[in-house]
Amino acid sequence: MYYIGVDLGGTNIAVGIVDEDNRIIKKGKTPTAPERGADAIVADMAALSKSLLADAEIPLSEVAWAGVATPGTADSDRGVVVYANNIPFLDYPLAANLSALLDGIPVHIENDANAAAKAEAIAGVAKNAKYSVMITLGTGLGGGIVLNGEVYSGFNFAGAELGHMVIKKDGRQCSCGRRGCWEAYSSATGLVNITKDRIEDARRDGRKTVMEEMIGGDLNAVSARTAFTAMKQGDEVAAEVVDEYIDYLACGLGNIINIFQPEIVSIGGGVCGEGDYLLKPLREKVFYKETYTKEGTPQTEVVVAELGNDAGIIGAAVLGK
Amino acid sequence: MYYIGVDLGGTNIAVGIVDEDNRIIKKGKTPTAPERGADAIVADMAALSKSLLADAEIPLSEVAWAGVATPGTADSDRGVVVYANNIPFLDYPLAANLSALLDGIPVHIENDANAAAKAEAIAGVAKNAKYSVMITLGTGLGGGIVLNGEVYSGFNFAGAELGHMVIKKDGRQCSCGRRGCWEAYSSATGLVNITKDRIEDARRDGRKTVMEEMIGGDLNAVSARTAFTAMKQGDEVAAEVVDEYIDYLACGLGNIINIFQPEIVSIGGGVCGEGDYLLKPLREKVFYKETYTKEGTPQTEVVVAELGNDAGIIGAAVLGK
Repeated sequence: MYYIGVDLGGTNIAVGIVDEDNRIIKKGKTPTAPERGADAIVADMAALSKSLLADAEIPLSEVAWAGVATPGTADSDRGVVVYANNIPFLDYPLAANLSALLDGIPVHIENDANAAAKAEAIAGVAKNAKYSVMITLGTGLGGGIVLNGEVYSGFNFAGAELGHMVIKKDGRQCSCGRRGCWEAYSSATGLVNITKDRIEDARRDGRKTVMEEMIGGDLNAVSARTAFTAMKQGDEVAAEVVDEYIDYLACGLGNIINIFQPEIVSIGGGVCGEGDYLLKPLREKVFYKETYTKEGTPQTEVVVAELGNDAGIIGAAVLGK
Repeated sequence: MYYIGVDLGGTNIAVGIVDEDNRIIKKGKTPTAPERGADAIVADMAALSKSLLADAEIPLSEVAWAGVATPGTADSDRGVVVYANNIPFLDYPLAANLSALLDGIPVHIENDANAAAKAEAIAGVAKNAKYSVMITLGTGLGGGIVLNGEVYSGFNFAGAELGHMVIKKDGRQCSCGRRGCWEAYSSATGLVNITKDRIEDARRDGRKTVMEEMIGGDLNAVSARTAFTAMKQGDEVAAEVVDEYIDYLACGLGNIINIFQPEIVSIGGGVCGEGDYLLKPLREKVFYKETYTKEGTPQTEVVVAELGNDAGIIGAAVLGK
């Protein structure tokens, strides 16, 4: 049998046909254009799915189910998106509507960060773990919790908001309204903000930093790569930015480990491209400073997620498992 | 059938005989005297259990199992206490050793905060909840997580350390070695420390507070009741202390809700004796300031735990369920 995985984002609808071994055998994408409204988006999900199946010469009768990874709060029991921030879904029966356009095959839905975590737990880096947590360092800081092969999202499907755990009360303003959330420091956006602040400090203190040339003196040109790139060139201010960033990331990870003690925490998102420049100091801070387990207790592994951009499609496709 | 529940503390071993309806029909206690070593403690658990059964005229053959709620990290699968801070248990086969002294009946073990959470989930305030979390505000801040009727403690049984979630990075020193843990602010000890600090501030700023008379000018006389008692008498500084305390408590609770979205969070421990003076402002802060759910999403209930001092015994007795 085959499975359809739909990864719905604010910009694109990505669809993949996935085989029994959780491999994507065909994929494609089409613009989301959220302003069109929910029904048009769902019609495109179905049309793209059918066209990919036709290309792969797979009849719909050989598809066991479709899954959709969606932004927002997804009631996976009822197949209803309760709310999404940047897609026009409000108590929207996504599963039923997509199923109706796909000859009635079963459709499963899940929040996108949760689906990515399930993908890693079933087909990725956490595949032998009983308990795993995934965090994604992107514009926001997304969290997904998988316990015994099942996504955990609380009684109202709104849980696993790991990025909205306050780690510094009264700290940086977060987009959610609270202050000091982990996301405000440890997302890619958080890294950009820390970088900007330290460049401004350097200006005030008269310290030199190559980051200033990299951005041509324009703070709006700072990206999540600025500090890591400058650090690799030996820049001291940049090294301090990276250290500060990893310090906050380790603080939140220490909390997650003290709460869940999962076998694996996997980290996804663009910032992970930094590899050992991120992971090595992160692991040191987490295990020598931030966690609570006594010597001799087995320790959580902190690793980079392995499915990358495919995690959404694969996570959606495995939702029925 | 009947069940033996043993609540092991640093000071006392409390034992209860519990019936099918999770009611304690007989209970007693004996000093722990941890310096005697593990085997002597277990011998006393067995002796007290047998003497209570004799008093109640219940033969051991009518006891389905015994359970022990113990401090520290309890490997509930193997029945081994991996480590305990104030009891001489180190990789100690507690279940096997107690079972041998009780004619071989099954013995289950669990960390004490986890057992209390299970007691509330099976026989207390969270009994109809699929997911519930309990926190206990005592010398420390203990946490217990119950999902689908099962204690969740991670792959190494060291999880659910909710008190050791940092909510204020680089904040107050915690006994665990980190700074800014929830426990450092929101345990009874945290309340005492906040109270002392604000009395000292008042001295420096020349502000009057009835707390000064209550403690006879001696900061060592501050208790977890000092600020609440003075606040009820209209003391302004005390009202500020209580507000600050509840602010931190709400911050941590907001995190727990954003992560778990349980139906119920129950709060146990001495500070709960303050009733609505604690709960009313706490709920307001949690739901209007600290949580992430959108309007219309069902909300977690925050309630006082109902089993009080019996939670340990009942929690131990229901471990086989």
